[in-house]
Amino acid sequence: MSGVSERGASLPHGNRLAALLEGWEPASEGAALMRIVTDLYPICRSITGNGVRQSLQCLSREVPLALHEVATGTPVFDWIVPPEWNIRDAYVKDRSGRRVVDFQRSSLHVVGYSVPVNRRISLEELRSHVFTLPDRPDWIPYRTSYYRETWGFCVTHRQLAQMTDSYYEVVIDSTLEPGHLTYGEYRIQGATDEEVLFSCHACHPSLCNDNLSGMAVAARLASHLAPLELRYSYRFVWVPGTIGPLAWLAANEETLPRVKHGLVLSCLGDPGGFTYKRSRLGNTETDRMVEYVLGISGATFEVRDFTPTGYDERQYCSPGINLPVGCFMRTPNAEYPEYHTSGDGLDLVKGDALAVSLSMLLRVVEALEANQRYLNLSPKGEPQLGRRGLYRSMGGTSGSGREEALLWVLNLSDGEHALLDIARRSALDLKVLAEAADLLVGHGLLRPLK
Amino acid sequence: MSGVSERGASLPHGNRLAALLEGWEPASEGAALMRIVTDLYPICRSITGNGVRQSLQCLSREVPLALHEVATGTPVFDWIVPPEWNIRDAYVKDRSGRRVVDFQRSSLHVVGYSVPVNRRISLEELRSHVFTLPDRPDWIPYRTSYYRETWGFCVTHRQLAQMTDSYYEVVIDSTLEPGHLTYGEYRIQGATDEEVLFSCHACHPSLCNDNLSGMAVAARLASHLAPLELRYSYRFVWVPGTIGPLAWLAANEETLPRVKHGLVLSCLGDPGGFTYKRSRLGNTETDRMVEYVLGISGATFEVRDFTPTGYDERQYCSPGINLPVGCFMRTPNAEYPEYHTSGDGLDLVKGDALAVSLSMLLRVVEALEANQRYLNLSPKGEPQLGRRGLYRSMGGTSGSGREEALLWVLNLSDGEHALLDIARRSALDLKVLAEAADLLVGHGLLRPLK
Amino acid sequence: MSGVSERGASLPHGNRLAALLEGWEPASEGAALMRIVTDLYPICRSITGNGVRQSLQCLSREVPLALHEVATGTPVFDWIVPPEWNIRDAYVKDRSGRRVVDFQRSSLHVVGYSVPVNRRISLEELRSHVFTLPDRPDWIPYRTSYYRETWGFCVTHRQLAQMTDSYYEVVIDSTLEPGHLTYGEYRIQGATDEEVLFSCHACHPSLCNDNLSGMAVAARLASHLAPLELRYSYRFVWVPGTIGPLAWLAANEETLPRVKHGLVLSCLGDPGGFTYKRSRLGNTETDRMVEYVLGISGATFEVRDFTPTGYDERQYCSPGINLPVGCFMRTPNAEYPEYHTSGDGLDLVKGDALAVSLSMLLRVVEALEANQRYLNLSPKGEPQLGRRGLYRSMGGTSGSGREEALLWVLNLSDGEHALLDIARRSALDLKVLAEAADLLVGHGLLRPLK
Repeated sequence: MSGVSERGASLPHGNRLAALLEGWEPASEGAALMRIVTDLYPICRSITGNGVRQSLQCLSREVPLALHEVATGTPVFDWIVPPEWNIRDAYVKDRSGRRVVDFQRSSLHVVGYSVPVNRRISLEELRSHVFTLPDRPDWIPYRTSYYRETWGFCVTHRQLAQMTDSYYEVVIDSTLEPGHLTYGEYRIQGATDEEVLFSCHACHPSLCNDNLSGMAVAARLASHLAPLELRYSYRFVWVPGTIGPLAWLAANEETLPRVKHGLVLSCLGDPGGFTYKRSRLGNTETDRMVEYVLGISGATFEVRDFTPTGYDERQYCSPGINLPVGCFMRTPNAEYPEYHTSGDGLDLVKGDALAVSLSMLLRVVEALEANQRYLNLSPKGEPQLGRRGLYRSMGGTSGSGREEALLWVLNLSDGEHALLDIARRSALDLKVLAEAADLLVGHGLLRPLK
Repeated sequence: MSGVSERGASLPHGNRLAALLEGWEPASEGAALMRIVTDLYPICRSITGNGVRQSLQCLSREVPLALHEVATGTPVFDWIVPPEWNIRDAYVKDRSGRRVVDFQRSSLHVVGYSVPVNRRISLEELRSHVFTLPDRPDWIPYRTSYYRETWGFCVTHRQLAQMTDSYYEVVIDSTLEPGHLTYGEYRIQGATDEEVLFSCHACHPSLCNDNLSGMAVAARLASHLAPLELRYSYRFVWVPGTIGPLAWLAANEETLPRVKHGLVLSCLGDPGGFTYKRSRLGNTETDRMVEYVLGISGATFEVRDFTPTGYDERQYCSPGINLPVGCFMRTPNAEYPEYHTSGDGLDLVKGDALAVSLSMLLRVVEALEANQRYLNLSPKGEPQLGRRGLYRSMGGTSGSGREEALLWVLNLSDGEHALLDIARRSALDLKVLAEAADLLVGHGLLRPLK
Repeated sequence: MSGVSERGASLPHGNRLAALLEGWEPASEGAALMRIVTDLYPICRSITGNGVRQSLQCLSREVPLALHEVATGTPVFDWIVPPEWNIRDAYVKDRSGRRVVDFQRSSLHVVGYSVPVNRRISLEELRSHVFTLPDRPDWIPYRTSYYRETWGFCVTHRQLAQMTDSYYEVVIDSTLEPGHLTYGEYRIQGATDEEVLFSCHACHPSLCNDNLSGMAVAARLASHLAPLELRYSYRFVWVPGTIGPLAWLAANEETLPRVKHGLVLSCLGDPGGFTYKRSRLGNTETDRMVEYVLGISGATFEVRDFTPTGYDERQYCSPGINLPVGCFMRTPNAEYPEYHTSGDGLDLVKGDALAVSLSMLLRVVEALEANQRYLNLSPKGEPQLGRRGLYRSMGGTSGSGREEALLWVLNLSDGEHALLDIARRSALDLKVLAEAADLLVGHGLLRPLK
């Protein structure tokens, strides 16, 4: 189809994106992604606090994202922004003064939002504040208690078994005070104000696949798209789970009608195949496009219907919001053994898995950008393509793939069919159809709609 | 889900029906049903006459049904109520004076609506008035001639083979005179005037599965529902086939828009699996609900599309009536060998089969009662369930089935989805969803629609 | 069903068509069709010129079709009618004066629309004007160049291999001058002005399956239908490919809303199974009916979705025309090896294949004629068929197929369902339903709609 793309020069976005994907180097992109994940890993994040701010600062090396602060007590729909939580240190010391549980070694050791404590307590009492995974004795579980005041430690089951002293010194040097909820946002203005939203949760402590992978991929995606000329505007948000998207939604209700597509990003670095969970609406252009791009990619993938459990698509797809937002993952939450444990560490996610996830998202963007509706300006019969040099001059022979693409685009460009519809009916590649449409526009036989 | 039903106390219908089903004793219920069938069995019914009246009196021991009388000659749509037929005795006597065919031994021996006869006739002439089943030589066939005046006897093929006299005395002591068509009706007033209709034909003589089973099940169903507080009103009609529903429809045209659901009941005592024949409309709430209840019951069943042959759904689903009325059976008419023969006797139907049929209908009623539409009153994002004690306080763990039900009900209660729709999308039990809805209503997060 | 058709006498079209099909003699019909093909075979056709006129004259022995002439230069939508091409002779002579390529032996030897030439040229130059099929060394390819002025010869690969002289005398005695485009048209006026369109391309030279088969079958179909009383009007056009239907469409825009059905006919004489390619609309009555008729015929067939490549359905189904026109074939274009070569000669097509194709089209016509919508005039309950002698008088027995047909027609004749819909829901034959409808109309229980 090389002969078709002569006019492509006037479509820098398509070409630039295509060029980006053609020159894609998974190894170097993977290394860049892993660097971000590795930088973020030690930071203790929660739904508020300095860990979130520090993480967003770290991401701002990739894209100049803005930090938004929402004050404790601010109502967001049915919720209220909680107090801000910060933690400096935490440990359990045995009789000999040795830290047998040490927050400095893993941010997972403290139950998120633990209130301060500084006491000597019996092993028996301590046990009622300790969480382990008996079935996975070497992994630390991940636990939080955002909306009920308590404190606790998460330790490996083996660790707990070795705690045999009668009394322990227990310290959690945390604060839970009025402050702010912080989220990051970055927006790329396109030719139109219609938006594509990417959202990822940024509240989990040292867990890599869930969701440092999503945070890193979103940042790199933003950084790749920023310099391109794009039809859509693109918005990226890094938000604490649940309360974060609610805060963003509450602050941006006027923007929502312009959100035409959206994806929640999570679990993008594990070795599993792709999983796309449809939006609540279920058959939006977003849903059909992600399925289409995965389908022609050759990758292993699964498409699932919406459920009201999972990630922040729960909020974006609540009945009063109901955005066309799906969830793009590899192995879904709770379906891999390391989920919500220290097993979800730097070994679980791989640079090439992250890089392929990112390139798949770029392909989705490329396809959404191309997926226009056109109007055939010569709809009665076929236009005479031969006169315009678009058709073989010698009759009796078979047509080329390019002719087929031209005929499909002309035939279905009645205002009812976008290129994705034509791709599905014709089994031709959307890219090939987009090139054909481009050529027909150049010959005055077609015009883009809206 | 026991923890969820604390508010159930304010829903007596649900609880009472659930309690009824939980305490269900197939053996005693089956015995009660068989008693009714056994009482009705010897009575000679037809589309009019004292046999119908006597049968309805018998049923009135279960529910205080009303008898309606429609005079001969009354036009009902395209039909006219025929003369009333009554029969006291009938026989064929041989030369020795022995009754070789005796109506007193089986009401099937006389062709329904036979005109009176009292003659000595040749075997040859008699043969032209005698019906047998050569392939089933021990069974008496069932024949009628409502709308063409004639007379006849139905006998076993073996019986006929033994009739070798040249002449026989033939007596049918019947009357065919102006009178009335009789049908029974019983109505339970619910909280609304929207009705669920149960209809069964009551015109067959000594045939058990078709349709003493339907008559008995309808009576017991009415008797079980009568004391409950119900959302719908329930109407039961015991009617002679074809002309009966027509007479009822003609007399109740104003009621028809209030009939939201309906089932024709027949063949409910044989050992076969269930058969549900959809209404003509084909995808009504009735149709989907019966299929749903059968589906989760674990019973063997088959669902078929509507056809204009069969039972009185033919009339309820005629194009000018077109009610959401399906037909609920075990083995359908004409698909078991005993159909319309004396083989359909007291041995064919069993108490436990009848009792399971009845409990399945109670489950359908329970589900229809529960199947409301609700409106999420906090539709932007999820409401904060934790604040209300409806959500685990410890994050990082998996949710419970109850939480899942709450989230599904909230997410889909947009006015478009009834609980059945939510059950089908979520694969959760409608009962569990109803309990969740109840709980959410109690917390002011949901309200029932209409 | 013989008992049902007593009223058929008033429906001459149905009976006459049925009689035609009952008395169908494939052998004599096949012989007639092969005679037409054989007569047309030697004529050199193109998209204009005397070959087309001569071919249409030949067909006018079957039906009195009209010849339409459209002048060169006439605009038809995006196209312009090209100059008229005629050819008297063409050859390549070797040094000894022997015609090594001779147009008199096959009209395929000259590239269609070749400009005149009369030169002595080197073998090397000649080779650049010669087309062969290296993979099929004994077949002459078919090539044209309607819209770019050039000349050329098509020869077998073996022929070319034997041309070893250095120079050849090359003569094409053709003219390419202002003139006319010619097409044939024949119309049968039915009881209504609603039309069924049959279109076939008439521009290919000595190629039998593509498309002398279509031309011959269309002519015989027209000749069989002409004497019948029909509900629809029928229009047949024999047109040069692409520019022909465009010219017809441009001249008949006012007629188009009356075209309710249409079929492009091609490739009807090869031994393959049937192929039906749906219209662009995809689910029109035409599409459903052809599929239905093929389905009940027992023939091997395949149904395909519309594509904008193929025959003149490309024009009839362009977005600004969008007629319910499918394409009826046996083996589709380009899917048999002889396609567009001299292999598509008199040996490829058989009389019986042509005759069966024609009878299938007659069955489609018969079904379209019968496929009316009716209104049940007694829609509340079933009408009393027994009173009218339409129903068994003895109850308890099974109904007949006729009764079933009557009940289906009554039940679904609500204005929404045509007989085809009833046939598909009931699995009864459309013919049987048409007879039942006829009977019910006769009894005042039904009336045809519109």
